[in-house]
Amino acid sequence: MPHKQVVMQRASSTSARESTHVPMLAIAGDSAAGKTTITKGLVDALGANRITSMCSDDYHRYDRMERKTLPFTPLHPDCNYLGVMEQHLQLLALGQPILKPVYSHSTGTLERPVLVDPAEFVIVEGLFPLWSKLSRACFDVTVYLDPPEPIRHEWKIKRDTTKRGYTAEQVLAELERREPEATAYIRPQRRHADIVLRFSRLEGHSEGPLSATLLLRPTIAHPDLSDVLGSDTREAIHLKLIRDDDGKPVDAIHIHGHAPRELTRKVEEAIWSHLDMDEPVPESLGVIEPGTRSEPLAVSQLILLYHMLAASKH
Amino acid sequence: MPHKQVVMQRASSTSARESTHVPMLAIAGDSAAGKTTITKGLVDALGANRITSMCSDDYHRYDRMERKTLPFTPLHPDCNYLGVMEQHLQLLALGQPILKPVYSHSTGTLERPVLVDPAEFVIVEGLFPLWSKLSRACFDVTVYLDPPEPIRHEWKIKRDTTKRGYTAEQVLAELERREPEATAYIRPQRRHADIVLRFSRLEGHSEGPLSATLLLRPTIAHPDLSDVLGSDTREAIHLKLIRDDDGKPVDAIHIHGHAPRELTRKVEEAIWSHLDMDEPVPESLGVIEPGTRSEPLAVSQLILLYHMLAASKH
Repeated sequence: MPHKQVVMQRASSTSARESTHVPMLAIAGDSAAGKTTITKGLVDALGANRITSMCSDDYHRYDRMERKTLPFTPLHPDCNYLGVMEQHLQLLALGQPILKPVYSHSTGTLERPVLVDPAEFVIVEGLFPLWSKLSRACFDVTVYLDPPEPIRHEWKIKRDTTKRGYTAEQVLAELERREPEATAYIRPQRRHADIVLRFSRLEGHSEGPLSATLLLRPTIAHPDLSDVLGSDTREAIHLKLIRDDDGKPVDAIHIHGHAPRELTRKVEEAIWSHLDMDEPVPESLGVIEPGTRSEPLAVSQLILLYHMLAASKH
Repeated sequence: MPHKQVVMQRASSTSARESTHVPMLAIAGDSAAGKTTITKGLVDALGANRITSMCSDDYHRYDRMERKTLPFTPLHPDCNYLGVMEQHLQLLALGQPILKPVYSHSTGTLERPVLVDPAEFVIVEGLFPLWSKLSRACFDVTVYLDPPEPIRHEWKIKRDTTKRGYTAEQVLAELERREPEATAYIRPQRRHADIVLRFSRLEGHSEGPLSATLLLRPTIAHPDLSDVLGSDTREAIHLKLIRDDDGKPVDAIHIHGHAPRELTRKVEEAIWSHLDMDEPVPESLGVIEPGTRSEPLAVSQLILLYHMLAASKH
């Protein structure tokens, strides 16, 4: 039919918006892996008018009440409209607005959708952004957050008891219930990320500041840090070539939890200078919560920011 | 970026669903113009497993409470996410599912969206399906319902007082309030329809059965009715060449309100026989409400059904 031909043509050529390339960053990871904290610092760094962030966990197919009668947790692909999520990721990457579903964590209900109109950059954080080949193809940079399980459990208990009204026992029971689906569906996404980010403590320690390790896979062009990292910064940060758990070679950047601020600051400024930005390094990087900073977090976020800004230049 | 290239390629070639052509029928018209009645008969004719129907008025940007503080009615384009409606129409035409927003007429609130997965055919009825060139291009057949205003007012009062909890005075006040926007935004869609359908009574009559006039514009290939309409059916139905209000030539089929059932039945069966269907003419055609039939409605629906089935063969 002649009508249908017109659709095809228009969809690929005539709309100015559709030829837009919006740099997109995926931050995947299990519940309470630190996705929101990292995203917030990045959005605050450039401003919400330049970065649109969204959570892909709003694509729940069932509300909390309905899930009670169903044999799976929200970590199961069948519990989510992942096909619609893929469709929306493609639309955002093409600069088109979407009407995004909304799941309320406080009431456990699905609510009125909201319009998400992509700004200059888009960050998508959630359980499933790296789920399929099609979803991954929508992103310029993909990150998987991989904290050791004891740390993630600690974070989840802290968050869910203070912000979501659960008891610690309920959170622990839920973590146990989710474990098989986390293994089956969430953790396999790690191998598809360009960057694996792990915050951890020195072996055997259960307190003290977290260090960060970034595995930089050769799937994208990482910043050249050779002029940034030298013998003078080695105490704070170092780069080495290692093999990942799967045996594949990868660059690993380690930022010490006890790194002195003046040294990490020097590294941050050097990375920042690569980006030709007029402003100083954004103060929002490294903020865990108001008043609490982490230099390993700041450097990690800066590397992600580097990738987003670099993607916008292509 | 290599990632982004992959998106473009996949979106246009690799998914089997995306190469699907789903025949789509638009039924546009003002509030209470008869859209739902016509749609229901068509869906019942082939079955909901073969025809997906949806109302495009769910794309309201504001709920009833919010609209109270705003200077427009739901008939204003700015009161609706028409860009998202266009996007969803394109996706449906390509055979892809959408997560459609939901507006509740009973509560006046925006609710949890629903998945609409297109079946073999799609009917979209609402205020705005013919609004833009892009939205029109998604359809194989477009219809505009154009009853005389007194009849539409009668229908709206009847429906809104019995099904939506308003008084007749409230409905009349609302009709008056909406009049400027109906003139500015709804009625101009009439000129873009392939078929304009008007149910009306004999001039000067305010009671009695409704006749139907279908203007068949030469924008699509209409069924050849020359072997169907003859001197023996002239009492029930006739075809003539006229000029539309804008002076443009158009075929007009008129089906008399008092047409004897045996004659309209003969015409219906003749049109139906063109479609190579095994089943008899569906009983759902012509049903206004359970137990009340209209032969002009039945013939009109049959012509729309003809177009949908014909579109599926291309």
